[in-house]
Amino acid sequence: MRWARVDRGGQAVFGQVLADSILLGDGDPITGTWTATSECELATAKLLVPVWPQTFYAAGFNYADHVIEQARIAGTAPNIPEKPDIGYRANNALIATGEPIVKPADATELFQYEGELVAVIGRRGKHVSEAEALDYVFGYTIGNDISERTWQNGDRTFWRAKNTDSFKPMGPWIETDVDLDALTTTVRLNGREVISFATNHMLFGVARYISAMSRYLTLYPGDVIWMGTEGDAENLQPGDFCEIEISSIGTLGNSVIAEA
Amino acid sequence: MRWARVDRGGQAVFGQVLADSILLGDGDPITGTWTATSECELATAKLLVPVWPQTFYAAGFNYADHVIEQARIAGTAPNIPEKPDIGYRANNALIATGEPIVKPADATELFQYEGELVAVIGRRGKHVSEAEALDYVFGYTIGNDISERTWQNGDRTFWRAKNTDSFKPMGPWIETDVDLDALTTTVRLNGREVISFATNHMLFGVARYISAMSRYLTLYPGDVIWMGTEGDAENLQPGDFCEIEISSIGTLGNSVIAEA
Repeated sequence: MRWARVDRGGQAVFGQVLADSILLGDGDPITGTWTATSECELATAKLLVPVWPQTFYAAGFNYADHVIEQARIAGTAPNIPEKPDIGYRANNALIATGEPIVKPADATELFQYEGELVAVIGRRGKHVSEAEALDYVFGYTIGNDISERTWQNGDRTFWRAKNTDSFKPMGPWIETDVDLDALTTTVRLNGREVISFATNHMLFGVARYISAMSRYLTLYPGDVIWMGTEGDAENLQPGDFCEIEISSIGTLGNSVIAEA
Repeated sequence: MRWARVDRGGQAVFGQVLADSILLGDGDPITGTWTATSECELATAKLLVPVWPQTFYAAGFNYADHVIEQARIAGTAPNIPEKPDIGYRANNALIATGEPIVKPADATELFQYEGELVAVIGRRGKHVSEAEALDYVFGYTIGNDISERTWQNGDRTFWRAKNTDSFKPMGPWIETDVDLDALTTTVRLNGREVISFATNHMLFGVARYISAMSRYLTLYPGDVIWMGTEGDAENLQPGDFCEIEISSIGTLGNSVIAEA
């Protein structure tokens, strides 16, 4: 089942995505309080960021080739993580599918996409075993972890490198029925495929992360965990259109514009 | 004026703190929608975390002596920040004054307090000048940035070192009338003063941070910025009681217990 967040006359409501339409409703499907009230056309619906997390987690370095490529850019030796230390991103940076990624006027040419699987937490959890961990996932969506590499390597934290306004496209919706091992992530730049990889070919999978995190942290419904990306990336320029497709979930598409 | 968040029969409401009582009300003083509806005794009120931020910012290394001391613990050369790169903490870790800090069973003895000034954002801001920046602050509260130093130095991120459940006491309330240069931060452990420092003796002050951050990030009402701490710290043990007092704001007090 697919759940979107939709603008209904200025109000954000959850809706169940059907073939050509969206059933809109009141309440929250993540906490099980949603009921259908109306319907709109899918083609003309204004999709919003599909969930507004209390805490926005990001795995960061979770695919081997990506770690090697980022080390090359930074001029350092690759340091493959030995355990799932989670990182953080911030809600100010979230935008929906179809909204523009704004390249800051002072960003360098090393302005890049990262196509990522996003796990959306469905219920409160602490001390969750790896065997039970996927039961705590409501569903999956797609993220584009836009990164300015010069800032990423030069600043003390990832604050502006990864959390500048508009740097976190997420969507288009949440898919609840997913076979993780069957997924392929494909990134297209202006319609041209630039990378395609097995989504679940991670250093540490969703279950391992949830179990490790919940040893110390309580996870809450609506929290999101961005699972990292594979390989290297090309640079994004104003005028580009970047799409992240994950098979059986959907496609997240955003244009790039220059800061006014 | 002092604003607290209070448990009123299971519901979290904002209240205006008076000498011996709290005026409780509906709405939000940060966005200017609050109106008084009832009153309760201050002494018996259950104070909650005074604001639940959308984004939880933390300056981290913002006092020279603290940077030097942390480098000593990590066995590295001190690296005094040259610009205000902001970091992040997470809401799962927030607890109110009076609630216990839980020391994890596998934490090392390097389990320490950090007394911090917290700026609470009062209005939405982007591209805020340093001269105007303090107009964007609703008020100030107090934070205790509990840190497990072995994890802080050994993990790839600060996730469990600083964001384990209960590691972020914040409160007791928000004070809106503050002269930053007149403030003193004092930390007491079991009633004994362990450090006292001029709160505003920062590498980068509140206005500098807000201006620098808002070049890239939109700040929202209720966002919090923890401003860092000074000096070194002693280790906390189960059974300890740790207080952070900032003059003219108040005192944040929390006991330490062992994980069950």
